[in-house]
Amino acid sequence: MPETADHRHHLLALEGLAGDELVSLLDQAKRFHTAAGSVPPSSLLAGRAVANLFFEDSTRTRCSFTIAAKRLGALTIDLTGAGSSLSKGESFLDTARTIEAMGIDVMIIRSRACGTPAMIASAVRCAVINAGDGRHEHPTQGLLDLYTLRERWGDFVGRTIAIVGDIANSRVARSNIHGLTTLGTEVLLVGPPALVPRSLERISAGPGGVSVTHDLDAVLPRVDAIMMLRVQLERLVGGAIADDYRALYGLTAQRAERLGPDVPVLHPGPMNRGVEITSAVADGPRSRIFRQDAVGVFVRMAVLASCITVHEEPSL
Amino acid sequence: MPETADHRHHLLALEGLAGDELVSLLDQAKRFHTAAGSVPPSSLLAGRAVANLFFEDSTRTRCSFTIAAKRLGALTIDLTGAGSSLSKGESFLDTARTIEAMGIDVMIIRSRACGTPAMIASAVRCAVINAGDGRHEHPTQGLLDLYTLRERWGDFVGRTIAIVGDIANSRVARSNIHGLTTLGTEVLLVGPPALVPRSLERISAGPGGVSVTHDLDAVLPRVDAIMMLRVQLERLVGGAIADDYRALYGLTAQRAERLGPDVPVLHPGPMNRGVEITSAVADGPRSRIFRQDAVGVFVRMAVLASCITVHEEPSL
Amino acid sequence: MPETADHRHHLLALEGLAGDELVSLLDQAKRFHTAAGSVPPSSLLAGRAVANLFFEDSTRTRCSFTIAAKRLGALTIDLTGAGSSLSKGESFLDTARTIEAMGIDVMIIRSRACGTPAMIASAVRCAVINAGDGRHEHPTQGLLDLYTLRERWGDFVGRTIAIVGDIANSRVARSNIHGLTTLGTEVLLVGPPALVPRSLERISAGPGGVSVTHDLDAVLPRVDAIMMLRVQLERLVGGAIADDYRALYGLTAQRAERLGPDVPVLHPGPMNRGVEITSAVADGPRSRIFRQDAVGVFVRMAVLASCITVHEEPSL
Repeated sequence: MPETADHRHHLLALEGLAGDELVSLLDQAKRFHTAAGSVPPSSLLAGRAVANLFFEDSTRTRCSFTIAAKRLGALTIDLTGAGSSLSKGESFLDTARTIEAMGIDVMIIRSRACGTPAMIASAVRCAVINAGDGRHEHPTQGLLDLYTLRERWGDFVGRTIAIVGDIANSRVARSNIHGLTTLGTEVLLVGPPALVPRSLERISAGPGGVSVTHDLDAVLPRVDAIMMLRVQLERLVGGAIADDYRALYGLTAQRAERLGPDVPVLHPGPMNRGVEITSAVADGPRSRIFRQDAVGVFVRMAVLASCITVHEEPSL
Repeated sequence: MPETADHRHHLLALEGLAGDELVSLLDQAKRFHTAAGSVPPSSLLAGRAVANLFFEDSTRTRCSFTIAAKRLGALTIDLTGAGSSLSKGESFLDTARTIEAMGIDVMIIRSRACGTPAMIASAVRCAVINAGDGRHEHPTQGLLDLYTLRERWGDFVGRTIAIVGDIANSRVARSNIHGLTTLGTEVLLVGPPALVPRSLERISAGPGGVSVTHDLDAVLPRVDAIMMLRVQLERLVGGAIADDYRALYGLTAQRAERLGPDVPVLHPGPMNRGVEITSAVADGPRSRIFRQDAVGVFVRMAVLASCITVHEEPSL
Repeated sequence: MPETADHRHHLLALEGLAGDELVSLLDQAKRFHTAAGSVPPSSLLAGRAVANLFFEDSTRTRCSFTIAAKRLGALTIDLTGAGSSLSKGESFLDTARTIEAMGIDVMIIRSRACGTPAMIASAVRCAVINAGDGRHEHPTQGLLDLYTLRERWGDFVGRTIAIVGDIANSRVARSNIHGLTTLGTEVLLVGPPALVPRSLERISAGPGGVSVTHDLDAVLPRVDAIMMLRVQLERLVGGAIADDYRALYGLTAQRAERLGPDVPVLHPGPMNRGVEITSAVADGPRSRIFRQDAVGVFVRMAVLASCITVHEEPSL
């Protein structure tokens, strides 16, 4: 990433990243992917320290970052909400500055509140990676989705994807919208009006463009990929509403057959099997769901490497 | 372990392992034990990733596996029930497949439910080690007990051991029964009828044989080892019942004196001092209790090494 | 540390350490500080195992020790109250002996109860470091405070420091009193009579001497450093009492201006901003608060190295 960008030391969002920055990260991830399993393991970040600062818990994201950091030779420490100074009333910022002072090079931050990683990034000198902040963004999830799609598509230009579910509350959708439209892909946002308001079309997005529809069946035949989002069951009050959701927006085997044969199915996990996606589809031939987890490690290695490298340049 | 066995990539149980497979693991553990402290440390598993997937918490087992994996140069990650995707309702299987996808070579699984490790093993390609599943088995605990006994006995054939306590609910007892009888040791199961029903004699065991008795005092003079199990205090309703248990089955100094002078006393921990065992015995000359913890690391190193090595063979 | 001292293998308290022992640790910390960032990283503790045994949770102390241990090449494991055998009723001592048996070289112990680290140290053969026990001591915090003061002062003799807050319940204050007075610094204990009783002057301290005062404003002009302690808000019942505390003992910008320009302000964290210290001071030019966290890692590296080195000597 160029030194002049505001995102120089950090990865806070995919919004604002240029297409060549995105592609550069995907290319670097591909190089790590190709080299996976080589012996001896990489020591690119030997002597570096990476802290997972997870004010909101997350198994898969924390593990993925930890594996990525360790595969690059970094030492890692974990701070989670439980048992941390947070329970003593310390502010996020003081916790972050304290941990930074201990010699941390990269801080990976997850938070229930939008903007926490950016707020911390403005107060520390180490690199900050946003691992999900409220309904704002989850940029490494967006990048690993791009990587997974690129494996199948080759190029992003002229492609169309449907993202299905609670778009209004989804940081995953938001990162994908920015990343995909910047690279020339058209994004269709699909779901019930309460979760996918027409106003989402006004997200300032890249050349690919964004449109909203409430009719999943109508778009199935024309998409090049489909991403199912996790339904927050607690938002769907009552079994009847869950049944309605499933009937209109659940990706069943029957619906999946209306997709082209090579159309990949994505899901950021964890899945509610039988609600937004059935097991026949989740475990079927189009599913790239566990592939997303696999490539996520390489994407996060690329992001970690880029943070450290750029972070160093001023001192050269 | 031979490639043809059903346990090829995994260690799910001691039931079904042949005597030479057990001895091979004990021999490998002995080699690691002998080499302990050598510098530089082993890099046998350098570049490998080991995940502790503990749906049921456990300090000592998790730490022992972690130390074993790190002493072999592997990177480790921990997932425990708290703070995991499990709290979002994801299935065990999806959690396991997600973690596997991140490039995990060995998954160590503990679960309250019998059969969870086997179920996961049938769905993933990485190696799976059972670290305790319900009342089924805890095979590495069984192996470290075998190791501890072998240090004192030399050979297993013709030896007799008493296992005392809540046998019906003990995965530790079950793994020991299978391992010990396969190697030719006679196992006496001792405890009150409610916890040690006569039907346990019908466990399909090896040549050593299994018998049930409710009279601890009668067997003390003739055993070559004694293993005290942890009493689940919550199962003994009321102090009076605990007193009864202690009176009939507690290993006191007085009872211990009726054991031969070289008869080892084992306990898988954590101990209820003053209930199933008194401190005089736990810290006395016959106790091998902390020795069990010590050798457990070497046994787990051997199991980890065997999983990885066999797992690799198909690709040679 | 000399082999003849009672603290030979352990660091349980600063009370009883001689001045040259303190200075030796500070000098070693300085060497690690100077070498920070060197590539390849230190492998002084390669093959060694360090366990964090935190019966009381602590983010910053645990992370600091973990980073220190990893920067020396040691492997680390974490045990915290939640999810440990403690929840099964096992004694602290059995937990510690179990973990030690697994091949741990250094055990770092935090406990709500005074004396737990010493009790464990008397029962294990590995080195024990006290990471805070009740209101007794927190010796590595004391050492990092000494280090921070020495950076500014050069020498300790003839200096005066005010420690302000709930001295009676503060293990940080207690470690500082012993360390600082041993090195010739005068310690003024400042706070309301209920929290700073006159009897504290009878602490058996070194040549620097200890005195109690309840008037913060009177001592500000004559101190060479000031250390603000965290107010336990739960001890100050009601907002009115917190207001009174702030009015009399809070370090505001106005009060800070009455300090000399180079007088360092310390706080062990986590801070209650707006209670015992205002943000203007915490983030102002006199503040060394995040410096304390930074040097803490080097101090803990020095302590870890000294434990291991001395621990080895008998076997030479």
